[in-house]
Amino acid sequence: MKTTVPELNLSAMQQCQHRWNQLLKPVGSLGRLEEIVIRLAGVKGDPMPDIHKKRIVIFAADHGVAAEGVSAYPQEVTMQMVRNFLEGRAAICVLAKLLDIELQVVDLGVLTELHDARLFSCRSGNGTASFLHGPAMTLEQRDNAMETGMRFAREAAKQNVDLAGAGDMGIGNSASASAIYAALLEFDVASVTGKGAGLDEKGRRHKVEILERALLNRSIPTDPLEVLRHYGGFEIAAITGFYLGAAENRMPVVVDGFICGAAAAIAMKFLPRCKSFLFFGHASSENGHRKALQALDASPLFDLQMRLGEGTGAALAMKLIEAAVRLYRDLPTFEEAQTNRSHLP
Amino acid sequence: MKTTVPELNLSAMQQCQHRWNQLLKPVGSLGRLEEIVIRLAGVKGDPMPDIHKKRIVIFAADHGVAAEGVSAYPQEVTMQMVRNFLEGRAAICVLAKLLDIELQVVDLGVLTELHDARLFSCRSGNGTASFLHGPAMTLEQRDNAMETGMRFAREAAKQNVDLAGAGDMGIGNSASASAIYAALLEFDVASVTGKGAGLDEKGRRHKVEILERALLNRSIPTDPLEVLRHYGGFEIAAITGFYLGAAENRMPVVVDGFICGAAAAIAMKFLPRCKSFLFFGHASSENGHRKALQALDASPLFDLQMRLGEGTGAALAMKLIEAAVRLYRDLPTFEEAQTNRSHLP
Repeated sequence: MKTTVPELNLSAMQQCQHRWNQLLKPVGSLGRLEEIVIRLAGVKGDPMPDIHKKRIVIFAADHGVAAEGVSAYPQEVTMQMVRNFLEGRAAICVLAKLLDIELQVVDLGVLTELHDARLFSCRSGNGTASFLHGPAMTLEQRDNAMETGMRFAREAAKQNVDLAGAGDMGIGNSASASAIYAALLEFDVASVTGKGAGLDEKGRRHKVEILERALLNRSIPTDPLEVLRHYGGFEIAAITGFYLGAAENRMPVVVDGFICGAAAAIAMKFLPRCKSFLFFGHASSENGHRKALQALDASPLFDLQMRLGEGTGAALAMKLIEAAVRLYRDLPTFEEAQTNRSHLP
Repeated sequence: MKTTVPELNLSAMQQCQHRWNQLLKPVGSLGRLEEIVIRLAGVKGDPMPDIHKKRIVIFAADHGVAAEGVSAYPQEVTMQMVRNFLEGRAAICVLAKLLDIELQVVDLGVLTELHDARLFSCRSGNGTASFLHGPAMTLEQRDNAMETGMRFAREAAKQNVDLAGAGDMGIGNSASASAIYAALLEFDVASVTGKGAGLDEKGRRHKVEILERALLNRSIPTDPLEVLRHYGGFEIAAITGFYLGAAENRMPVVVDGFICGAAAAIAMKFLPRCKSFLFFGHASSENGHRKALQALDASPLFDLQMRLGEGTGAALAMKLIEAAVRLYRDLPTFEEAQTNRSHLP
């Protein structure tokens, strides 16, 4: 994976902090909204960052591990949901419309190929292999999927997207993400395995068993991109590439929940500096996500007990980030508003 | 205070829960967004609640206790900020514009009276008396301020506001709110006293001393409306009335941070049933707010360490609530989307 991640622009961040302190509000009283904009300034290398164009790219793929019965939903739902994304019928479409976010949908390897001009077809294969029996992907498939994600990030940056996000779709992908968290962060896999899209407790126990067998069957790689190859899905590889490509191009990117968090974890282990370019949107209610976020020293913006995926948490977080930027840009200074300041220093 | 608060409509809530379970997403996967809409259904008595019109009413007044040096800002800032609200120059104005929220500004008793056709003048007096030396208001002033708030709620309901909120402005009002929390929830006053708009630690200690003296000087009333009369500001009384009026008229209302939370606490102690009509927006970073929210069994939607007031937290929360409603109304059912459901019950 050839990429380089720049450093935050500290001078832009200092100028931004200075401006916040002049604005018509008690110093520091916008809390994390102020921190967000300061980091955006560092990311963009611009003391007056703005947000005009927001985009979420949904990456979809099927997972061989679904055959082991780790999901409450049948595998054809991946394809059906891709169709729903294209028709504007899914949760992320409702939010994108309300919050003025562009959507793109990319097929990384859904079992039943859809032929639709609105769908970006960038297939790395016909679904992954089941990681219960061996690596989910070949080296070539992994690199191909990562490069797809990176390409979509570069394209977005070129098209002046100011704030980007990724969404995921793939029946079985919460099992994949659990395996990645366990391998990468050295967690007991049961502690980072939840009910996904809706297993009951019996189903979750079975999922944990499958994951334990998959992780015990062979030595767990330490190289983050090898962890991705062994346990990942094509869409998780693409999202990893998307985050790296965003960082490479100084494009701030919002991380969604449990699945996207696994991609972020790989990207951060691969190139730690990319963390500065990631804004963690929310803590999902999927078992273990909060723990994983803590291990990554990531502070999500909110926790509304969501666990839907598709980029829905990232979409809501984008509006909070946009609000922070509007406050920063549109508030007058005390002087401009002819208003007395605190008598404190 | 003559008002009655209706009960939630349980049948509408059940129908709403049923619809959520049919929608194209894993059951329960929108977490608190689902709970919000279910409660909205109960509030409005409508299984398909919608949000077209959002409004925040900012109530402003001056506080006699400001003379005791409990704020980092000079008292004329109350008037200056009222002018800024009218000119669209304050944080709440920026958010209202971005998030499509109507604003109204009401003068409950700002020391220097502004004459401006855009300002609703409903003065209960020329600022409150300092509660260090006696009750902040007379009975008549308190009832007058509460009735003003109630009138604005009734008016909003009549004008089909679907989601309302209040904002506050008043130099010294965090001292007032601290005294109310301490008196009403039987907290040690230091544990619910923060730096307000920006005291340093020395200033905060002085504020705590003043509050301790004010609370020790006389027996603390147990009647919530007497607590309001003794320690409240006119704007806090108006916000209390606004919440009661919203509940009376089945209009859902978003509670902002520390100051509005004190008004909500009074409203809830006065008429416990009104709690069902209040949506707590955010936990502010003001010392003691989280503790007070816990004592009131209130779960805020987010915590971004904000402490600006003006209704800014309520404004952001309104967008989350609106997003929940859009998802609820616009998502198709699994059947409509011809998508397979979970094989689990």
